[in-house]
Amino acid sequence: MAEYKSDIEIARAANKKPIMEIGARLGIPELDLVPYGHDKAKVSADFISRQSDKPNGKLILVTAINPTPAGEGKTTTTVGLGDGLNRIGKKAMICIREASLGPNFGMKGGAAGGGMAQVVPMEEMNLHFTGDFHAITSAHNLLSAMIDNHIYWGNELEIDARRVVWRRVMDMNDRALRDIVVSLGGVANGFPRQTGFDITVASEVMAILCLAKDLDDLQQRLGSIVVAYRRDKTPIHCRDIKADGAMTVLLKDAMQPNLVQTLENNPAFVHGGPFANIAHGCNSVVATTTALKLADYVVTEAGFGADLGAEKFFDIKCRKAGLKPDAAVIVATVRAMKMNGGVKKDDLAAENVAAVEQGCANLGRHVENVKKFGIPVVVAINHFVTDTEAEVQAVKDYVATLGTEAILCKHWAQGSTGIEDLAHKVVELADSGEANFAPLYPDEMLLFEKIETVAKSIYHAGEVSAEKSVREQLKQWEAQGYGNLPICMAKTQYSFSTDPNQRGAPSGHTVPVREVRLSAGAGFIVVITGEIMTMPGLPRVPSSEKIHLNDQGQIEGLF
Amino acid sequence: MAEYKSDIEIARAANKKPIMEIGARLGIPELDLVPYGHDKAKVSADFISRQSDKPNGKLILVTAINPTPAGEGKTTTTVGLGDGLNRIGKKAMICIREASLGPNFGMKGGAAGGGMAQVVPMEEMNLHFTGDFHAITSAHNLLSAMIDNHIYWGNELEIDARRVVWRRVMDMNDRALRDIVVSLGGVANGFPRQTGFDITVASEVMAILCLAKDLDDLQQRLGSIVVAYRRDKTPIHCRDIKADGAMTVLLKDAMQPNLVQTLENNPAFVHGGPFANIAHGCNSVVATTTALKLADYVVTEAGFGADLGAEKFFDIKCRKAGLKPDAAVIVATVRAMKMNGGVKKDDLAAENVAAVEQGCANLGRHVENVKKFGIPVVVAINHFVTDTEAEVQAVKDYVATLGTEAILCKHWAQGSTGIEDLAHKVVELADSGEANFAPLYPDEMLLFEKIETVAKSIYHAGEVSAEKSVREQLKQWEAQGYGNLPICMAKTQYSFSTDPNQRGAPSGHTVPVREVRLSAGAGFIVVITGEIMTMPGLPRVPSSEKIHLNDQGQIEGLF
Repeated sequence: MAEYKSDIEIARAANKKPIMEIGARLGIPELDLVPYGHDKAKVSADFISRQSDKPNGKLILVTAINPTPAGEGKTTTTVGLGDGLNRIGKKAMICIREASLGPNFGMKGGAAGGGMAQVVPMEEMNLHFTGDFHAITSAHNLLSAMIDNHIYWGNELEIDARRVVWRRVMDMNDRALRDIVVSLGGVANGFPRQTGFDITVASEVMAILCLAKDLDDLQQRLGSIVVAYRRDKTPIHCRDIKADGAMTVLLKDAMQPNLVQTLENNPAFVHGGPFANIAHGCNSVVATTTALKLADYVVTEAGFGADLGAEKFFDIKCRKAGLKPDAAVIVATVRAMKMNGGVKKDDLAAENVAAVEQGCANLGRHVENVKKFGIPVVVAINHFVTDTEAEVQAVKDYVATLGTEAILCKHWAQGSTGIEDLAHKVVELADSGEANFAPLYPDEMLLFEKIETVAKSIYHAGEVSAEKSVREQLKQWEAQGYGNLPICMAKTQYSFSTDPNQRGAPSGHTVPVREVRLSAGAGFIVVITGEIMTMPGLPRVPSSEKIHLNDQGQIEGLF
Repeated sequence: MAEYKSDIEIARAANKKPIMEIGARLGIPELDLVPYGHDKAKVSADFISRQSDKPNGKLILVTAINPTPAGEGKTTTTVGLGDGLNRIGKKAMICIREASLGPNFGMKGGAAGGGMAQVVPMEEMNLHFTGDFHAITSAHNLLSAMIDNHIYWGNELEIDARRVVWRRVMDMNDRALRDIVVSLGGVANGFPRQTGFDITVASEVMAILCLAKDLDDLQQRLGSIVVAYRRDKTPIHCRDIKADGAMTVLLKDAMQPNLVQTLENNPAFVHGGPFANIAHGCNSVVATTTALKLADYVVTEAGFGADLGAEKFFDIKCRKAGLKPDAAVIVATVRAMKMNGGVKKDDLAAENVAAVEQGCANLGRHVENVKKFGIPVVVAINHFVTDTEAEVQAVKDYVATLGTEAILCKHWAQGSTGIEDLAHKVVELADSGEANFAPLYPDEMLLFEKIETVAKSIYHAGEVSAEKSVREQLKQWEAQGYGNLPICMAKTQYSFSTDPNQRGAPSGHTVPVREVRLSAGAGFIVVITGEIMTMPGLPRVPSSEKIHLNDQGQIEGLF
């Protein structure tokens, strides 16, 4: 068997082109690219606004089966497909999310893709990158400081200090900050109250930045954030605190998409990274809409499996941004099929066609679901060296029964040459005019019915259960004019049900809604169906203990 | 009287050159400049290490009288002098500090200089700039998270949770975070304990970054930070927590000096910004030592008045970095002399030669003090339009009696043409070979004697008072091997005494030492003589309420 280099070895050996050259290929003049080093750049707001009259390219979503510890390679396939489309002569680019800094110091950092299908520069993308997340942290915490400052100086707005819902954020895994009491120490430090920190990617500011069309829209959405309630439970907004203008100033540069390149020197936007549970888990609208003006084919991805990621991509991002996807790719691996078919992680290397066939039910459900949005689907089998021909054929045969095609892709090992077949198929689907996108439910549906629609139609649940207080909260928001918002489901990504251990394609289960949260600025209602951790902790031996610069000044231990 | 434009109007109208062009003038190849936009760049570590064999230019310190609400214009004069030296045909550059983000949302943001003597781009320098402070915040808080994480997972090092001295930081004015309890909420969140946040510029990581010679030295110093004590009061260091490597990785780019330009397109390093009370208040050693390789004359400044800023520049920065300054400029204004002479702020516009003469005692003391370090001195009178000829002459006559010269400078209104005389004088002093730098006290002096030496020699105090516990703490540190560290005085900047209202040149006062703190990584002992605020609050009407983007996308309200 051939020896494979690690992702970081491949990334370090990348033959990067100057980012100005990558931009020039997209028609972006040098002065409209704001460089961050020689291999990263932001696209100016002015250039973006000048593109508005241009026609849009085709939009392709890469999504996946429910993730398993075996790994499915969604980002790798997104990157590979972008390179594959370029290889077959198409003008294509990809749009993916930015990585969060904090978690890299807990477990190993995440590559952007893998093998021969990566986006570079990898180290920077896992560290400060172009500072977007720091800007979001600053904007979020400015609002927090202004809320407590308002209370301190007399509380003219009559904020109920027990009902401040706006916490603080930090891009760090720091469990000690989850639950804190602030303003101790006497009169000069304010009124003590209990609050906490979330990790930056969980900030509503992150979700807002990723959904805003432009800086005006950004400020409008920031202003609409509900930060607290009065004793009579009437909401107080960010714009009542007068923080929206300064927050917009802090986010001015962060709003602009970041241009980088793949290992094959094809353009990629890496921009925004909202949580995929309490938020919608997609890269920014600005990046996607800009890419559609610059390329004929834009490949993007959504978080988690298609039950969460694709559903939110369609029902939140596409609905709100007016995007009309033209095709979808569902990534599956033989290994993940086997795990869905009941094989344990240690036994994945052995051939087991029966388990593959059994696990395909999970894939089938996702294929069926994505078609419900009117989008033609192709399955990408992301090849692992341990896959046998018989196993691969089993997946292909199964997918054929769904009236869809599964294509074996070897981009991880071979780069774009390994994914040409998929690229041709995607072009065929996207150009076919077959797509007829529609969100799953209309804006005007009642909020609880929206939850039921997603639970039954996508998760195949039997029913949705909720305490009276949850139902009343939804009704109250409907009365306050928030009834037209889409819902954002926070559910385990490992199962169609709310039980992470239920693999395959379970049906008839109950979806218990524990809590609902209003993200009035982002423009959705978060529906929480399980334990949601918004501030991770570090493990017993965090990777930060091993991260260091080696003698050549290279970063070790991050990957 | 002529109409003057505001600083921001002048800065926006600046005719900036591409930063690559500014770098080229210093002999920095394009690939060794890491651009952040088209008007900011970092100088690569590799380029810096290649300069080590080159001879050093002359180092000129700009310092000042005790600040008054009238303003003395220290940075303006630093920038003006840099331009003036270039104007008279010298290869000169300036080195100044970076601005802190947080305070800009409280009061108006600080320009880098003023009038026709500014560094640009002004907005970026007051916002995220090149992300250095965000990197420092991340590195600091990673260590914080790792300390609590260590305790959480079994506390092998036996940290006394009551004696964790490492707090968290945020670049925000947020009084609610001064005094907090963390780790509430039960077992999963750790052991509750009281702690707090400081503003980022008060972080020891900031002081360390500004004193480190290179990345190796940086990691060494980070490792030496004392983060906590055991029950038996033995110290626990950052390297015991194993955070120093990852912190260095986070600070890798932040260690590199930021190149920008003056309004007259002359090069400027803007790098680092430690507090001037609990830290040493100078730009980074790396910026200064690099500038000395690239220019024949390097103009830099120190925080506050010369009693604090220049003393620390000499006794901490120059001592530790092996720098030998060649000349010093003490900035004074007629208005500040009048305030030192007892005139109230509202009455400053009226001519009052007698008050000027009386206030000159403050200036005289600073001139005398700086000479004690073996550095030749010239006084720069930073001209205000309300100054009368008689008042200016009074300052000149007074300074002449000290065997020194005072030169009227009109750089604020005229740019470099207004400061040619000072530039010629500075060249004369720096080239004279007159400088014979020596720090005020030797490394091996006892710590309390070092405090007495500064208090008596620089402040003209009669005595230093301290509780027994303070004296014992100092002795304990001496026993632990920290006795050779310099001291870092935290005193009001408004007076030679510890009473901010005592203007002029008081003598014989008592300097009460309230507290001493060990900054083992930065390499100094902080001596606190008054109330030191390390986390500011926002005012009743913070400037953030007015900061916004205007229709042209320009930032309003920040200045």
